[in-house]
Amino acid sequence: MTNKADTLRIPAGFQQPGTVLLVGGQRIDTLAAQTGTPLFAYDRNLIAERVDRLRGALPERAHLTYAVKANPMPELLAWLAPRVDGFDVASAGEIRRALDSGMAPERISFAGPGKRPEELAMALQAGITIGLESRGQLDTLAAIARETGRTPRVSLRLNPDFQVKGSGMRMGGGPQPFGVDAEQAPAMLDAIDAAGMTLAGLHIFAGSQNLRADVIAEAQQRSLDLALGLLRESGHVPEFINLGGGFGIPYFPGEQALDLASVGERLADMDHQLEAASPGTRLVIELGRYIVGEAGVYIARVLDRKTSRGHTYLITDGGMHHHLAASGNLGQVLRKNYPVAVGTRLQDEPVETVTVSGPLCTPLDVLADRVMLPRAEVDDLIVVFQSGAYGLTASPTAFLGHGPAAEILV
Amino acid sequence: MTNKADTLRIPAGFQQPGTVLLVGGQRIDTLAAQTGTPLFAYDRNLIAERVDRLRGALPERAHLTYAVKANPMPELLAWLAPRVDGFDVASAGEIRRALDSGMAPERISFAGPGKRPEELAMALQAGITIGLESRGQLDTLAAIARETGRTPRVSLRLNPDFQVKGSGMRMGGGPQPFGVDAEQAPAMLDAIDAAGMTLAGLHIFAGSQNLRADVIAEAQQRSLDLALGLLRESGHVPEFINLGGGFGIPYFPGEQALDLASVGERLADMDHQLEAASPGTRLVIELGRYIVGEAGVYIARVLDRKTSRGHTYLITDGGMHHHLAASGNLGQVLRKNYPVAVGTRLQDEPVETVTVSGPLCTPLDVLADRVMLPRAEVDDLIVVFQSGAYGLTASPTAFLGHGPAAEILV
Repeated sequence: MTNKADTLRIPAGFQQPGTVLLVGGQRIDTLAAQTGTPLFAYDRNLIAERVDRLRGALPERAHLTYAVKANPMPELLAWLAPRVDGFDVASAGEIRRALDSGMAPERISFAGPGKRPEELAMALQAGITIGLESRGQLDTLAAIARETGRTPRVSLRLNPDFQVKGSGMRMGGGPQPFGVDAEQAPAMLDAIDAAGMTLAGLHIFAGSQNLRADVIAEAQQRSLDLALGLLRESGHVPEFINLGGGFGIPYFPGEQALDLASVGERLADMDHQLEAASPGTRLVIELGRYIVGEAGVYIARVLDRKTSRGHTYLITDGGMHHHLAASGNLGQVLRKNYPVAVGTRLQDEPVETVTVSGPLCTPLDVLADRVMLPRAEVDDLIVVFQSGAYGLTASPTAFLGHGPAAEILV
Repeated sequence: MTNKADTLRIPAGFQQPGTVLLVGGQRIDTLAAQTGTPLFAYDRNLIAERVDRLRGALPERAHLTYAVKANPMPELLAWLAPRVDGFDVASAGEIRRALDSGMAPERISFAGPGKRPEELAMALQAGITIGLESRGQLDTLAAIARETGRTPRVSLRLNPDFQVKGSGMRMGGGPQPFGVDAEQAPAMLDAIDAAGMTLAGLHIFAGSQNLRADVIAEAQQRSLDLALGLLRESGHVPEFINLGGGFGIPYFPGEQALDLASVGERLADMDHQLEAASPGTRLVIELGRYIVGEAGVYIARVLDRKTSRGHTYLITDGGMHHHLAASGNLGQVLRKNYPVAVGTRLQDEPVETVTVSGPLCTPLDVLADRVMLPRAEVDDLIVVFQSGAYGLTASPTAFLGHGPAAEILV
């Protein structure tokens, strides 16, 4: 099945008049010569523009935080640290990276359904906010706090009592390994008080990679209702209610960008509700993919061009070992093509249907299947867009021994 | 959907009378205390037994080689090197590991649809056999050979003109990025001669992870027929014909172990055909998963035990970042459970249906979904069997910053 539309889907941030793609104003062939291929290149200006757009759309009182798991590149974190209001981390490794970035400890928040005792101890020592996701985590943390004499600063993650439809990944509603069921929350809040911990906030994440403003807004409103009801009953006034985010980016043909203004309008309304009900509490919107996903590209070099039984393959030095998501193997049920281009022939007409494969000896190693592209030759550079989030660190870099890709922030 | 059968599927090599699982005669709780968790443990005796069984079943003249990509752990390679007849590698990284293992260069064979010029130069320099998979690779290698004055030792990989049904992964027939279409092979052989290269062998791989002896034998017979026809026409007498392998191991409920004796009988017949047609040529059977897959376990510690809306979760410190295949995200269309056990309570009766999740903040991070297990508590060790191949190196170890697992050969 040929998908001609695929060639036309160069994301807005990368639409340019030249022959060779620029990232951060620099030619990708020059970048590739400096770092070798394959490489991930992230455009810091596109990230800044996205943060600015978010600041413009979100309520002024709300905090915008970055989910480090989306892209934990140290240079990127250092650059983002002064531009967002906090980092959300998910492991000891991410705690270290967040602290190294210069982000203030009290603005770092630690989530995760499985926290090792050593990780809890490290987080307590560093003074970051620890998201509690079970009674077991609370008890383990309480024991560590008693030993060390420190007062934990915690938040409570709730598994909501509703589900969000139309989300790329559902993370709330029904039974879940994440957080504490909403109906168990009052008992958890009592236990947090009894342990002498400081309740800094509540977390409610309903899903991820959602492109529908109405669905996101509905989930956020219901999350806020849940949180406000809980606070009203318990009498707590935490610093924040983290509504997650789950703002999606368009990957596949036919997908439309999220209507951010619409999400922002609904959030303004929620912010007023919150201000009226609990003036000392602010909304937190936590985003990963939406901040960095569209600002990054993956660049691989064509090693070979071959035709097998009438079908043409471009074999590149990049593949699933660096970009598992683009190969269709990171949770996707049906493989679809990320937007791709021949980054060294941007103005050429698409003239042939090709499959872009990686160097691995497995049929899974496909970057783009049966796409219309300009004719590419050996040494041309293939660009996979929408690659700024869940790229290199979400990929099996040691698979078949080719080693990791370079990463640059330009 | 509860699958009670799952608990009963402890593979034969690990069926033991004790309470705590032994790997290589050592208790896994002791091993875990030494290395920390999670860890992969590979039983060298089970690997030796498997090699012995293969030696007994395969024709005496045939060579048995190991596909390094299945598990490139250095200690494992060093231990296998004297026990098999060669290593098959797929990258510069694997070439280095194979050479470091002590394997003789002429017994190392380099496959892969995308070989970088530096990799070809390295392989030529090391004196290993270079599998040619396209005219482009041949031309690049010829140019390097002219510059260095070395004579390449090559094999030709063929994309067969038939397909094998019932294979876990199809890698031949129809258009493919792998190898040279069978119908283009005569021209390639002429070009190999014209370039002054030594033709050491032919490679034909029809698929992988196949549990049906009749299907494997049929594919091997057709591959041999293809190779013999080609050699007859061209007059070449190479050292080997590599028929691949693709011998599967049982992962999921209802799967039966491969009938190795039956495959061996058919191969004996093929060996006679080959000896009659080309006495100087031997068969090579290349196996990865079949040699090491059943000899390895993945061991993770229970960090938390929680019940959400009536469903119990065991949250462990291990997950998809170490064992992508067990999480169902390495090419599987439908997620199925690998065999799992509570490795510290082997004799307890299965009493509850649980989901074993990892520590990552994603619903993808599941090691076993809705399996019947004995009641496990925090600090118990969960064991995932059939984890000796395509485990750690096929996984996104940097995802969410938890770091890699330990690996030991016991």
